[in-house]
Amino acid sequence: MKVEQDLHMSRGDGETSYAANSRLQEKAILKTRPLLHKAVEEAHASLSLSRPAGKMVVADLGCSSGPNTLLVVSEVLDAVANRYHRQPPPSSTTGVVVQFFLNDLPGNDFNLVFQSLEPFKRLAVKEFGEALPRYYVAGMPGSFYTSLFPDRSVHLFHSSYCLMWRSKVPDEIASGAVLNEGNMYIWESTPAPVVKLYQKQFEEDFSLFLALRHAELVSGGQMVLTFLGRKNRDVLRGEVSYMWGLLAQALQSLVQEGRVEKEKLDAFNLPFYSPSVDEVKAVVRQSELFDTDHIELFESNWDPQDDTDDDDVTLHSVRSGINVARSIRAVLEPLIARHFGERIVDDLFDMYAQNVARHLEQVKTKYPVIVLSLKARG
Amino acid sequence: MKVEQDLHMSRGDGETSYAANSRLQEKAILKTRPLLHKAVEEAHASLSLSRPAGKMVVADLGCSSGPNTLLVVSEVLDAVANRYHRQPPPSSTTGVVVQFFLNDLPGNDFNLVFQSLEPFKRLAVKEFGEALPRYYVAGMPGSFYTSLFPDRSVHLFHSSYCLMWRSKVPDEIASGAVLNEGNMYIWESTPAPVVKLYQKQFEEDFSLFLALRHAELVSGGQMVLTFLGRKNRDVLRGEVSYMWGLLAQALQSLVQEGRVEKEKLDAFNLPFYSPSVDEVKAVVRQSELFDTDHIELFESNWDPQDDTDDDDVTLHSVRSGINVARSIRAVLEPLIARHFGERIVDDLFDMYAQNVARHLEQVKTKYPVIVLSLKARG
Repeated sequence: MKVEQDLHMSRGDGETSYAANSRLQEKAILKTRPLLHKAVEEAHASLSLSRPAGKMVVADLGCSSGPNTLLVVSEVLDAVANRYHRQPPPSSTTGVVVQFFLNDLPGNDFNLVFQSLEPFKRLAVKEFGEALPRYYVAGMPGSFYTSLFPDRSVHLFHSSYCLMWRSKVPDEIASGAVLNEGNMYIWESTPAPVVKLYQKQFEEDFSLFLALRHAELVSGGQMVLTFLGRKNRDVLRGEVSYMWGLLAQALQSLVQEGRVEKEKLDAFNLPFYSPSVDEVKAVVRQSELFDTDHIELFESNWDPQDDTDDDDVTLHSVRSGINVARSIRAVLEPLIARHFGERIVDDLFDMYAQNVARHLEQVKTKYPVIVLSLKARG
Repeated sequence: MKVEQDLHMSRGDGETSYAANSRLQEKAILKTRPLLHKAVEEAHASLSLSRPAGKMVVADLGCSSGPNTLLVVSEVLDAVANRYHRQPPPSSTTGVVVQFFLNDLPGNDFNLVFQSLEPFKRLAVKEFGEALPRYYVAGMPGSFYTSLFPDRSVHLFHSSYCLMWRSKVPDEIASGAVLNEGNMYIWESTPAPVVKLYQKQFEEDFSLFLALRHAELVSGGQMVLTFLGRKNRDVLRGEVSYMWGLLAQALQSLVQEGRVEKEKLDAFNLPFYSPSVDEVKAVVRQSELFDTDHIELFESNWDPQDDTDDDDVTLHSVRSGINVARSIRAVLEPLIARHFGERIVDDLFDMYAQNVARHLEQVKTKYPVIVLSLKARG
């Protein structure tokens, strides 16, 4: 598996596309809105100290393609406009200009994003009126585990639902030896050395990410990062482990039916790790590059359409199973299709929906989502 | 016709794509290479005066999607590397970092460009070795007849084979009244008032372009612009007019066959104008924003595969007709298909190939290409 090539959300805007199935991610953006607004304020404040004055560079890392991509742009513009409303710039100046970079891996459907820009711009003019700041939107293809911007050229990084993806499957696991039989990620039967490999990959990736972004940020620059984490102390029973575990079970069923080779399943491992808050804190602390303004873990229902706060009951488990399967398919279909072939995809996600429904009848597992806000040390 | 939406080169990399049929444009880039290298030198020199030192921003306007898109990136990197070879930076500095923005209309196939970046990068490492400057490549969707960058943020603009495209068909011509019957651009039978409308559109567009770019350039910033022009003094018999005229003739044949409605043809007008050198000079002079370092007109055979310098003889007119039709189809197919429907495209360009072949047997018309190099006044 080549992560940089094969990992991208389902393209286009059809029924099974990511664009049409990204409500889960939208909810996270809305939930973390106050933190993003605060970060824009801080980035704005750091602006007056940097040159050329008045240009704020904002990059969204892992922007994907769909309504959420431009929702982030809209939120940042809203925060800038709000600030101006409260504290208008001197009439001699033109106010801040925002230059956005929407980043994702090269396989992302940037064409879809770019083609939705014109309608977005017309809507923004209507919505913001005179308060609309001047802004520009560019696309920046590349892995955020590589250098993406010149040094000291960015004021604010945002990333939502991306940093649980690793730069690669740990080498030892990808090497061909079957170390985690029947699984595609850490689950109940995963041996301890395999867990260690995933954790090491997370630590390496996240340290690298912090170092890269710190070099790219101006002094006092901001980051707001949201990603899937783990609430359960037991790493073998992480909440997201269940999500992947149920998909692995569906694949096992296909193996039993003779439609998927067992070797194919054993060779399929996700470039993924959802850390605990403590694991995140430890890497940030060791980097010595950022101050943590805020860190918290909130929970989000597996079913993106379930807006209830109830912790115990899934009202419509069959419906929820289908909804969960759709949202996961939109994220994972390119990877699955590449590895196992297109022809199993429909049936796999039908089975997965059933597995999820059965699970939700027993326990209403939720996604633990970690959000943290960091400020670059000078 | 909505230029911003409908005007783009044929997508993908199949047989009739622009990516596979852009040798004509490649030849222009290679021909104007010395001017581009000189402009990089000058931009580089202006760099040490601007802050933050060491970051050179280069934008290619109308980058399209195909091998030429990254050929421009490669040429700029080559110029920077050459300069370093002759004049190494002090060992205490890291040298210049180049940030590229590849700009085109939102309908351009940016996905194709972004997916070709990884192989390009690997090749660049091999080719340049240690001389390879640090560089980043972003995509910037939008019309270059709008503001694309924050003020004073760009050091070098490049544009090849684009500035003959207008921001729109002149309003009066697009309004529905049939002012230029049977034609799609200025040709022998075009009435004088219609010619004036095209010329006015060029003057407005090019003035706007110069003003927009001047605002975006740092003081002393550079532009290298290459586009189709006119050598013949008689505006009704411009060389490119013949190219479009022969396509209009093919459309007229389809009208006679009852396969295209006459009203459809009369309503089809190109957002295009290829000016004379004097017309270009006049707009630059009136703008008072740039000094002209260089301006010239060179000629390029209609047939992209014809590398002979002979002015009088087309050796293989049938073959050349087919080659010309391919290169024009790669540019115009999206516009034609949108207006007339997909189903006529194959036959239209077959007929066009025959028309071009017949024309080339009589006279070897060439493309006049204007290239100019401008420096922003402070």
